[in-house]
Amino acid sequence: MRPFTSTISLDEAKRRLDAHVRSIDRTERVRLDESAGRVVAATVTAPLDVPPFERSAMDGYAVVAADTAGASRPAPKRLRVVDRIFTGQLSRQTIAPGVCAEIATGAPLPDGADAVVMVEETARRGGDVDVFATASAGQNVGRRGADMKVGDAVVSTGDVLTPSRVGALAAIGQDDVEVFAKPRVAILSTGNEVVDPGQPLPPGHIYDVNRFTLGAIVAAHGGVPETHRAAQDTVEALIAALDTCAKADLIVFSGGSSVGDRDFVVDAVAARGEMIFHGIAVRPGKPTAFAMVGGTPFFGMPGNPTSCLSNAYILLMPYLRAVARLPAYEPRTVRATLGRRIASAANRHQLYTVRLRDGVAYPAFKGSGEITSLSQADGYIEIPAEQAVVEEGTSVTVTLF
Amino acid sequence: MRPFTSTISLDEAKRRLDAHVRSIDRTERVRLDESAGRVVAATVTAPLDVPPFERSAMDGYAVVAADTAGASRPAPKRLRVVDRIFTGQLSRQTIAPGVCAEIATGAPLPDGADAVVMVEETARRGGDVDVFATASAGQNVGRRGADMKVGDAVVSTGDVLTPSRVGALAAIGQDDVEVFAKPRVAILSTGNEVVDPGQPLPPGHIYDVNRFTLGAIVAAHGGVPETHRAAQDTVEALIAALDTCAKADLIVFSGGSSVGDRDFVVDAVAARGEMIFHGIAVRPGKPTAFAMVGGTPFFGMPGNPTSCLSNAYILLMPYLRAVARLPAYEPRTVRATLGRRIASAANRHQLYTVRLRDGVAYPAFKGSGEITSLSQADGYIEIPAEQAVVEEGTSVTVTLF
Repeated sequence: MRPFTSTISLDEAKRRLDAHVRSIDRTERVRLDESAGRVVAATVTAPLDVPPFERSAMDGYAVVAADTAGASRPAPKRLRVVDRIFTGQLSRQTIAPGVCAEIATGAPLPDGADAVVMVEETARRGGDVDVFATASAGQNVGRRGADMKVGDAVVSTGDVLTPSRVGALAAIGQDDVEVFAKPRVAILSTGNEVVDPGQPLPPGHIYDVNRFTLGAIVAAHGGVPETHRAAQDTVEALIAALDTCAKADLIVFSGGSSVGDRDFVVDAVAARGEMIFHGIAVRPGKPTAFAMVGGTPFFGMPGNPTSCLSNAYILLMPYLRAVARLPAYEPRTVRATLGRRIASAANRHQLYTVRLRDGVAYPAFKGSGEITSLSQADGYIEIPAEQAVVEEGTSVTVTLF
Repeated sequence: MRPFTSTISLDEAKRRLDAHVRSIDRTERVRLDESAGRVVAATVTAPLDVPPFERSAMDGYAVVAADTAGASRPAPKRLRVVDRIFTGQLSRQTIAPGVCAEIATGAPLPDGADAVVMVEETARRGGDVDVFATASAGQNVGRRGADMKVGDAVVSTGDVLTPSRVGALAAIGQDDVEVFAKPRVAILSTGNEVVDPGQPLPPGHIYDVNRFTLGAIVAAHGGVPETHRAAQDTVEALIAALDTCAKADLIVFSGGSSVGDRDFVVDAVAARGEMIFHGIAVRPGKPTAFAMVGGTPFFGMPGNPTSCLSNAYILLMPYLRAVARLPAYEPRTVRATLGRRIASAANRHQLYTVRLRDGVAYPAFKGSGEITSLSQADGYIEIPAEQAVVEEGTSVTVTLF
């Protein structure tokens, strides 16, 4: 068996990961109604003015503003109504002094008109209308191009497509958009003992957990999980598995990254690439490795489900988002009072899961192997490497899942 | 034309919406690898212990603990190694006093053994091993059922499937799970002037924006958007459109909800259901309606893209999440200094979009009709109905998109 020769700090692991981000360059065209959350790969400029015509911003009457000068309730100005303009219609009339057109919100302003009097400031008198207020030129008129002008950048490379940006693209008539491809993430559990859920469980075996937790994290943070069946614990099987995953943008194995006789992931990586780090002073999750395998980044995650998922949150997820060109994720945090004393491992940065009840954080960590350490927790607190104990009653920051 | 007879406050609108939530009861079975983010519809209990057997928590030697009493580096205890147990293997040996078995992390503990000495506290001597530390019974042994015991609730009705909860289901061998169905949300823009993106734009027409912004919001908050082609502005067309959408769990129209001659959505709703409110003292977004149509909740959103999306954030999204049985969404907020004075509409709760630059919030609102009011903003500040002005330099809370 081969003990870790050394571990690096969590901060050093993060630095090395940052230095090895390979942001995705592949792009693809997606339908606008499937584009939300994607990252724009090419700046889009407006091919038309939005709105493409001068339009009424109110239900009311399109007028020559000068006709309304001095109008008031006691002394209205009377105008002849020569048309009624609905949305989607162009008026054939020209509005000359003394006449006006009834107009709906969003309908194109007729020629000659330069203002709209809102309906609340008028009274209809058969074929005429009394106007009770003075309108200034441009009043209640939506100018052509007020929203966007031909040539304006509507979205720019690197923008994440929020609902409003999707809407801005729709407004210029785009029904698709060029975005960066989602990184394909090959996920594979290693271990002779690992069995797929839904299958019978032979003695001495356990169900595969990490493929599912990793897949959920990857899908939630901009990646496309490509899951593979568990690989056996031989160097040959693991090298073959690495080769199978070679077309992915990121490879994530779990298990086999510790120091046991059959922890052959390290040997398989050595045969195909370069180890960047192996072993982090963090608990849970010490036996975590990162390598570049033929230009493809590779994570070797611990086999223990809680260690694996914990490091997926703090290391894999930020890395994946950078590859996907998504902004850093800022998890929600709450302050709470620690409900019970926690002793922390010496010289290891510890993530300790907690349950929240009425502002009190109760320790929920059972063990690195127990997925319920996480599934029955609401979040975690972090205990720095140099701190050995957190006393009951301490105010702590809980990062929520 | 028919002016609003009255508007209600934003708070009152929220209260009425809360009172008309119809949480989804339909359930469906989904594959575990597609279950993240879904809401559990039936409590799942563990059909087996996890782990299902006693196992080693370390790479080392499975021993009878009593054999190691008093062991130390100067005075090691020597044991004969009778087996080597890897994961997924059951040992045929029984560990009696004086013997031990080399064992890998996760491998089943052999009969007779009651502790594991970690490899770092041993030295191999051919067919024997020297043990340098006293092991207590149970040390480095993962107890059967330590994670979950037969009959334990693994996930409960109403739980959102986080990655760890997906993992907990995998750990008990489930490859699918019963969840609440996602609400089907029928989305339809109304208006003669509305044209689908990708199509030519006739004079006096505009592209459909709201279908895309609403679809993005719905998909991001637990719904399945079912989009329909824009409907014409006649009562008959709108009633037909309502009937087309009758099988949805929620209907969202945009446009036609104001007071113009052709704002027939109100009439269509009157023909088929009961109006709960029409008109909210909020800016943008005053002409927003909510109704129950044959038992199906109906939102009539404003046609102006910014009004529509703004109210989708503050009214539709929370309502949809409640229907989907998702917990309330808590948007991220930041504090910023207002970079320019804002005058707010009297007696209307105002949402004012802003751009953030170095901790300063600059007004980004152009108009209710301009989607760039939102797409070029980072978030919004809220100005209560009773406040008329927010001065430059004021500290404000910005809700981020």
